[in-house]
Amino acid sequence: MGPPASIYKLTASEVVAEVKAGTITVEDYASGLLAHIEERDSQVEAWAYLDREYVLKQARDLDKVPADERGPLHGVAIGVKDVIYTKDMPTQHNSPIYAGSTPQVDAGSVVILRRAGALIFGKTTTTEFAAVTKGPKTRNPHDPNRTPGGSSSGSGAAVGDMQVPIGLGTQTGGSTIRPGSFNGVYAMKPTWNSITREGQKIYSLILDTLGLYTRSIDDLQLLAKVFELRDDEPPPTRFTVKGAKFGFMKTASWESAGPGTKNAMAKAKALLLAHHAEVEDIELPEDLDDLLKWHETVLYTDGRTAFLPEYRVASEKLSGFLKGHVESVHQYSHADQIKAFDSIAAARPRVDVILARYAAIITPSVPDEAPLGIEGTGSAIFNCIWTALHTPVVNIPGFKGENGMPVGLSLVAPRYQDEKLLAVCKAVGEIFEKEGGWRQ
Amino acid sequence: MGPPASIYKLTASEVVAEVKAGTITVEDYASGLLAHIEERDSQVEAWAYLDREYVLKQARDLDKVPADERGPLHGVAIGVKDVIYTKDMPTQHNSPIYAGSTPQVDAGSVVILRRAGALIFGKTTTTEFAAVTKGPKTRNPHDPNRTPGGSSSGSGAAVGDMQVPIGLGTQTGGSTIRPGSFNGVYAMKPTWNSITREGQKIYSLILDTLGLYTRSIDDLQLLAKVFELRDDEPPPTRFTVKGAKFGFMKTASWESAGPGTKNAMAKAKALLLAHHAEVEDIELPEDLDDLLKWHETVLYTDGRTAFLPEYRVASEKLSGFLKGHVESVHQYSHADQIKAFDSIAAARPRVDVILARYAAIITPSVPDEAPLGIEGTGSAIFNCIWTALHTPVVNIPGFKGENGMPVGLSLVAPRYQDEKLLAVCKAVGEIFEKEGGWRQ
Repeated sequence: MGPPASIYKLTASEVVAEVKAGTITVEDYASGLLAHIEERDSQVEAWAYLDREYVLKQARDLDKVPADERGPLHGVAIGVKDVIYTKDMPTQHNSPIYAGSTPQVDAGSVVILRRAGALIFGKTTTTEFAAVTKGPKTRNPHDPNRTPGGSSSGSGAAVGDMQVPIGLGTQTGGSTIRPGSFNGVYAMKPTWNSITREGQKIYSLILDTLGLYTRSIDDLQLLAKVFELRDDEPPPTRFTVKGAKFGFMKTASWESAGPGTKNAMAKAKALLLAHHAEVEDIELPEDLDDLLKWHETVLYTDGRTAFLPEYRVASEKLSGFLKGHVESVHQYSHADQIKAFDSIAAARPRVDVILARYAAIITPSVPDEAPLGIEGTGSAIFNCIWTALHTPVVNIPGFKGENGMPVGLSLVAPRYQDEKLLAVCKAVGEIFEKEGGWRQ
Repeated sequence: MGPPASIYKLTASEVVAEVKAGTITVEDYASGLLAHIEERDSQVEAWAYLDREYVLKQARDLDKVPADERGPLHGVAIGVKDVIYTKDMPTQHNSPIYAGSTPQVDAGSVVILRRAGALIFGKTTTTEFAAVTKGPKTRNPHDPNRTPGGSSSGSGAAVGDMQVPIGLGTQTGGSTIRPGSFNGVYAMKPTWNSITREGQKIYSLILDTLGLYTRSIDDLQLLAKVFELRDDEPPPTRFTVKGAKFGFMKTASWESAGPGTKNAMAKAKALLLAHHAEVEDIELPEDLDDLLKWHETVLYTDGRTAFLPEYRVASEKLSGFLKGHVESVHQYSHADQIKAFDSIAAARPRVDVILARYAAIITPSVPDEAPLGIEGTGSAIFNCIWTALHTPVVNIPGFKGENGMPVGLSLVAPRYQDEKLLAVCKAVGEIFEKEGGWRQ
């Protein structure tokens, strides 16, 4: 009797425990994932690169590592977004300019994960350079007629489809949180620069952030430990919703919210009240209504710097949107650029003070459930301000839209309170997952 | 009769002109540089990697490019600091952890240079990860008993010794400007993020800047064009010192200035006055005296993120200074980190306003001429505030210290006024080089 066919459903924390207990081997586990992928891949197409034989070879190598030399992620399979370098696999950025490119060096995040014993499984699809909204081939695992979101399309879909328990994404606008909501998984954008972005394609230095996908908060907490995300104050060991205060923020983009998100926000509030939390409606000061505009200005002007190399090499192979950055089609001046950059910078400490009044701010992750079609990956309108503000954000799944697709909500905390945010999300996630109406 | 033995002395602009005119071939030029290096290498040791045969092969390939397909840097030799990726050479960061590492991908800056026709010549030495002050093997070309400075030791020394006309450096503290002064060359730190830092080792995202070495302002202007450094306002076509206003800033670190720098500042003032400029002593507001401290706080805390991967892989191969970052030996909290990060951000627009009142601010590049010994690479005390403030800085050589070694001064302009700064430096550089007292 081999390992159970459902082995692919294990979370990362469960894999670690089972491998440690000796009830499964890494090879059993990897084989289980591969069998599940075999069955599902033609419908989801989450992978930009996946070498089955190499996965099994790595798994067998991991099984040979003596117990006392094993790391905290020993045997855990991780999908890596294809804008992040892996020394043993191509990194192609969904761009013909980088077809077959294999830099032979691991990104800093991948170095840390590999050293912790992770099984770097394969490369997941991305939109071109994680910078456009035109989707790759990937489909939403919960409905193949819908987008999994982007730009971290493959990682979001692969984790949502239980093809791997952990996926790496990136976020410059809403590229981690949006697919989190669309695929019904936990997604975390940690505080900016709290995890190294070495070896990850640059779009905007001041915005780009590594993102994490899991199917449980325990797994995010495990990753937070591996990446040493440490708050100044130790987080609550057992945060309870009862008596805690949450701020509900519709934001200046609320008119973009559809029924799925409106229902999720209303239901979340009702659930937290039912669990004896205090809730309060709150908005950022009006003079910060321009945050979204400032984010765009920084993004487009930084994009000029970021994509000049590719433009010079093969502008005809660059999408019109990115060519437009280099050609300054939006005609942002450096004066505009500086004003946007400095205004966001001035907003960060002010917003931290507001966020610090709450256990967390609860705000939309997306306008609604994943839209139909895979050409477009949806809107980042609710994510960009938090990316600009550098705050940690976690998408919690649990709600559903009019078509039965998952809808998540974002919880936000002040910068460098990632551990606290996860402790809060642990308790809130239990409620949303159980009572929100959407199940895997 | 072959090309003249002095061919190695050509500036980049001269090389471009001569190759274009057909008076020299790229192979002639490369051979001349290699012959000069052959003679000088044992004394200077500027190179971390140099493959003579490969240089000649590239030169011959460049000679075969049809005239109408040649770029603006056709045939110009460029030394690349060994923390910047080159697809055809190792990138070893002066760290045993990366011995022999060859990422097979060009940094964004190298992509642009190569596409412009540059001859990527070899890799120049660096201090470990461009992040410590312990020098590599390299010696100052003007006195082998003295440091060339760091961390861009090899690029500064190679350009100072006419082994190549252009060198790429990086600056997170004073790593470009300091070697510029010590080696008697022009050094430019452009506005932060105006040139992509893709493929350049990260120390601190908000501080790291690509740096440029040349022996003339013409060459810096040529590079500025290639990298599309474009001000909002077109720069003066012929800036004249007469009637222009310069601010002399001793800074809060003036007590660190030795006789070489004190003399340079006094002489520069006298020269500009003699050339009918207006000069004014000026200092930043007192509440910005902490800029240096904030820079250090950001640097050390960002260093924790940046070097966690190497620490996990082989902490015993990391210098104590960098291990200390990861282990938080300075005990900066995230609250300290945020305060420093936000305070610098708030200072940037204020300082821009002050700088905008002058043609340029003139301020020390270094405490004094290059110190004796090659163990230490000198102090960045006069550079760090400008790195933090993101302003463009150009070191102009021309003065000398008590031991006859070169001493330069920094000219500073507001963010994104790189072209204007270069126009000003063109006129000021002519005066300093001619009348300052130091000659190549």
